[in-house]
Amino acid sequence: MFYGTLRIAQAQMPVITDRKECLKYIEDKAARCQREDADILLLPEMFCCPYSVESFPAFAEPQGGPLWQACAGIAEKYHICFSAGTMPERDEQGRIYNTAFVFGTDGKQLARHRKMHLFDIDVKGGQHFRESAVLTPGDSVTTFTVELPSGPVTFGLAVCYDIRFPELFRLMALEGAQVILVPAAFNMTTGPRHWELLFRSQAVNNQVFIAGTAPARNESSSYISWGHSIIADPWGDVDSHMDAGEDFRITEIDLGQISEVREQIPVLRHRRTDIYELREI
Amino acid sequence: MFYGTLRIAQAQMPVITDRKECLKYIEDKAARCQREDADILLLPEMFCCPYSVESFPAFAEPQGGPLWQACAGIAEKYHICFSAGTMPERDEQGRIYNTAFVFGTDGKQLARHRKMHLFDIDVKGGQHFRESAVLTPGDSVTTFTVELPSGPVTFGLAVCYDIRFPELFRLMALEGAQVILVPAAFNMTTGPRHWELLFRSQAVNNQVFIAGTAPARNESSSYISWGHSIIADPWGDVDSHMDAGEDFRITEIDLGQISEVREQIPVLRHRRTDIYELREI
Repeated sequence: MFYGTLRIAQAQMPVITDRKECLKYIEDKAARCQREDADILLLPEMFCCPYSVESFPAFAEPQGGPLWQACAGIAEKYHICFSAGTMPERDEQGRIYNTAFVFGTDGKQLARHRKMHLFDIDVKGGQHFRESAVLTPGDSVTTFTVELPSGPVTFGLAVCYDIRFPELFRLMALEGAQVILVPAAFNMTTGPRHWELLFRSQAVNNQVFIAGTAPARNESSSYISWGHSIIADPWGDVDSHMDAGEDFRITEIDLGQISEVREQIPVLRHRRTDIYELREI
Repeated sequence: MFYGTLRIAQAQMPVITDRKECLKYIEDKAARCQREDADILLLPEMFCCPYSVESFPAFAEPQGGPLWQACAGIAEKYHICFSAGTMPERDEQGRIYNTAFVFGTDGKQLARHRKMHLFDIDVKGGQHFRESAVLTPGDSVTTFTVELPSGPVTFGLAVCYDIRFPELFRLMALEGAQVILVPAAFNMTTGPRHWELLFRSQAVNNQVFIAGTAPARNESSSYISWGHSIIADPWGDVDSHMDAGEDFRITEIDLGQISEVREQIPVLRHRRTDIYELREI
């Protein structure tokens, strides 16, 4: 396990449906990451597509399609590890996923996580949404290791509503994830109630860093993002916290905190694996 | 599942080592519960014994011993369901446990939970403790159903450090727990950092009520309790929250909230049991 520092850039960007404009926006951020020595750039969930069941099929592209290629190209051009939020992905059978792709500094795909828990909620007087009307859920727990200039770092990857499921976060931590990336878009109902609580608690439960990156709030959107991109650390403290508007920040985290807290409060070692078992099937 | 209201009494009491004085204190609270129609009375972890590895063997008694009998008697006399915090329990082989007993209104034992995750932490410049030096951990997930005047309620039972383990809380919820009782004693290191976060998040993750009952703070104790007895509801809201000092409160909770939140944000139904499995071995 690598114990150095990691510079995480988060772009709390508006959803930009014009492709050219969207890529220009991202490229500006990637260039800034290169200038300011960020190790990884994170975008929000559905940065390129309105968050609506009507838009997902209309904007869906295959892995390797034009948007995927453009993102890979940006990673390579600016020599930045790039977690390209999520985009609607269409597979060969025509199924659509809410998919997070991550690219290495050479532009090669490092990881893909298809949102595993679809967001079907119906809060009285609050948010309603039904992803399952058009999306297919993914079926893999996703972790991957990146050789960064300062050493290898193991990441986990999940999408938004996935964060409500402690099983998934525990499995990523048990697979060695040190930093879990969560492109997300909570709303005005669940955001104020649960956003910070869930990020901080999954970080404390598993003694890892968790970075949640959300779109900037747009009050005229059909789905209004809570914003508040966050990085929670293994002590459960909030290392970075944005407000609702458009923002860009680079946060330096100390990966040494992981072993520090695990020595001092060794919950992972204290798990009663003789009493209960959690496993990927 | 019963959807009515439940009146929960929490006694954030000082640790009282004088047996007679301790029982008089509890009896006063039980009498008040009867007068004010509380359904269940909760005491904190180690209400009768200093929280120290030296004291646990000195104060340990068997199940059915004098303290157990006195608690059973109070439950029966005041016709109150009574979660008698925890006490050090010695079994026939001489092993000692940090044990939560619950008694029914007829004075019969309804449940026993021996703390399953022992509290061995060593925070630099903060709290050090090593329960495993003298205690043996329990080996059961504990839930039980009580026929209260207003209907049957299923409870879960855990002790303090157990709350850091999402596996245990998920298993109790899957066994049908609606209200999870957690006699606990966080300290001045972990209390401000994690107490409220853990209670609220385990409640949100499992969409149950969780009641944490702590001893009142005593600055001259070798182990200083954080206090802050709490009831978190299935939305993650805090229904009751004490400060650090001696206190007694009755909180009426609406069990209907459980089905309400589970219909609106159906996380338990959305668990990907085709991808991961959590089970009691």
